[in-house]
Amino acid sequence: MQIAWANNAFLQVIEYIAVFCCGMVGGSATVRKGYDITAIIIASWLTALGGGIIRDVMLGVPPVGVNDKGLVITALASGVAMAFIYPEVDELRWSMLTLDALAMALFAVEGTAKALTLGSSGMTAAFMGMFTALGGGLIRDTLINKVPMIIADKHWYFVPAAVGCVCTVGICRMTQHGVIDVRIEMALELVTVVLVVAMRLLSVKFDISVPGAIARNHVYLPGEEHRR
Amino acid sequence: MQIAWANNAFLQVIEYIAVFCCGMVGGSATVRKGYDITAIIIASWLTALGGGIIRDVMLGVPPVGVNDKGLVITALASGVAMAFIYPEVDELRWSMLTLDALAMALFAVEGTAKALTLGSSGMTAAFMGMFTALGGGLIRDTLINKVPMIIADKHWYFVPAAVGCVCTVGICRMTQHGVIDVRIEMALELVTVVLVVAMRLLSVKFDISVPGAIARNHVYLPGEEHRR
Amino acid sequence: MQIAWANNAFLQVIEYIAVFCCGMVGGSATVRKGYDITAIIIASWLTALGGGIIRDVMLGVPPVGVNDKGLVITALASGVAMAFIYPEVDELRWSMLTLDALAMALFAVEGTAKALTLGSSGMTAAFMGMFTALGGGLIRDTLINKVPMIIADKHWYFVPAAVGCVCTVGICRMTQHGVIDVRIEMALELVTVVLVVAMRLLSVKFDISVPGAIARNHVYLPGEEHRR
Repeated sequence: MQIAWANNAFLQVIEYIAVFCCGMVGGSATVRKGYDITAIIIASWLTALGGGIIRDVMLGVPPVGVNDKGLVITALASGVAMAFIYPEVDELRWSMLTLDALAMALFAVEGTAKALTLGSSGMTAAFMGMFTALGGGLIRDTLINKVPMIIADKHWYFVPAAVGCVCTVGICRMTQHGVIDVRIEMALELVTVVLVVAMRLLSVKFDISVPGAIARNHVYLPGEEHRR
Repeated sequence: MQIAWANNAFLQVIEYIAVFCCGMVGGSATVRKGYDITAIIIASWLTALGGGIIRDVMLGVPPVGVNDKGLVITALASGVAMAFIYPEVDELRWSMLTLDALAMALFAVEGTAKALTLGSSGMTAAFMGMFTALGGGLIRDTLINKVPMIIADKHWYFVPAAVGCVCTVGICRMTQHGVIDVRIEMALELVTVVLVVAMRLLSVKFDISVPGAIARNHVYLPGEEHRR
Repeated sequence: MQIAWANNAFLQVIEYIAVFCCGMVGGSATVRKGYDITAIIIASWLTALGGGIIRDVMLGVPPVGVNDKGLVITALASGVAMAFIYPEVDELRWSMLTLDALAMALFAVEGTAKALTLGSSGMTAAFMGMFTALGGGLIRDTLINKVPMIIADKHWYFVPAAVGCVCTVGICRMTQHGVIDVRIEMALELVTVVLVVAMRLLSVKFDISVPGAIARNHVYLPGEEHRR
């Protein structure tokens, strides 16, 4: 009981930080387009809590994004903060990218762990983690009518999130089977967060991209006349 | 019992009118772009019932948008009507704007009251009202690939909806605590609808807009070299 | 019991084929835009399973799109396959259109039948079938920031899906009332699939389109001064 609570408190702290980071990123996208303060706050709120709402609706539990006062206030506060401090945030090179990577990593761990706690299978939990981590950005880009980053970004974006979710499934499974205790679980989860952030940032820094579809000139088709 | 029924009947009438208004607005957006009759009906249906479907999915109840025959027929009828009478609706100045404001106000009251009836907290109910009021427009604008009004509209759009939801929470709470009876509740809810519509129309009429992010020229950052 | 199982196995086979076809269509849209392999796989996965996820969330059951290992692997495989064989698929005239029509038809039958099995009313089941059949394409086009086919396509697209769903409701109702046995039900469902595919392909082949809103030059409005 004690252990479960401690574990949950840890995950909740992670969730608060992720929501604030993610909200700032969402607000930033609308600030840059010159939208008004309500648009900034709505974008922050939906970016920060949208992924979690999708996860909770799929898991069939009441969505924290509209039920948890603390998280809602955090998300709204991130929007308000962004309306004031966006010049500083913009000025700090890499700040947006790092915030986004951090939010993604934290949400991947938190979303996966929450689904496992609610009894999901490993695969479902990994999907829930990915929806939590990537759903907010998807909603944000749809709101401002852009092709979402998960499709358009050439660098590693989906890959680190997927790695984070799969690692979290492994870590939680080890705890459940008594291989590691809760302290080590927390440490490993933090390592996972660092790993995900590092993968994302390094792929942008060193311009490492994911390959596209296989490029081929020759088409292997029997018979049918080919278009040129 | 009698009272609850009367109250529900009142909310249901509100819902029907809101669905019809909202459906006409949704259909109008596709008529103007020259899409075909199935597109008009689909856009009407999704605009009119999409917000309520989001609310019901989040509340974990069967969505009325696909279960309530009356509402579905109303939504489809609004699409069919729009395909015939759009020149008249377009001709009447302010008609679209008023219909949209009316639908928003009615949905805000109805959505919030429904969530409270199902036992949501005040904050959750206010969110549910906002999703009901603004979700349809969000879906409509996503369908026709525009930045949604909730982000792009410079005038008061989110603000009146939020005011309507918060007022409704207050009114329903007063009824629950026996401060006012159902007749007064209905009267106050109608006043709320009028207030929301008035706020929206006046903000467009007198071009009252929401301020944007704080404009600043000076960036307060210690040390780091600044970009120009 | 035996009968229900046989019936379900039939529907499951249909679902697998639909998921693979639909995934290939989704992947193809991203391949053509030059996005990378993760984007292709994500688009395939969301196009193939997104419609079913929407249906399951509305029905309040755990979404198969994140819970069924077989379906998930099928969807991912369709994305991987598309990254390799897209030149062949593109080369085969009509292949994309046929795959898309087939996926739509199979999903319409499967989605409707699933909802009826879970106790939905006929109208709700027909809607669930349409969400399953058309939801994936809606998500795909939103992802790549296009006006979705359901709105933009001038040919029959929504109409065949709706016909398929309504026919399936009729067929399942007849089985439930003992008018036809399961063998005949399966045969009729296959006929429905063929009918839907034929309607879609013929409407494109012979350029049969759905009419738009009623074109009128005269506006019937009493009094008010008309804009020119």
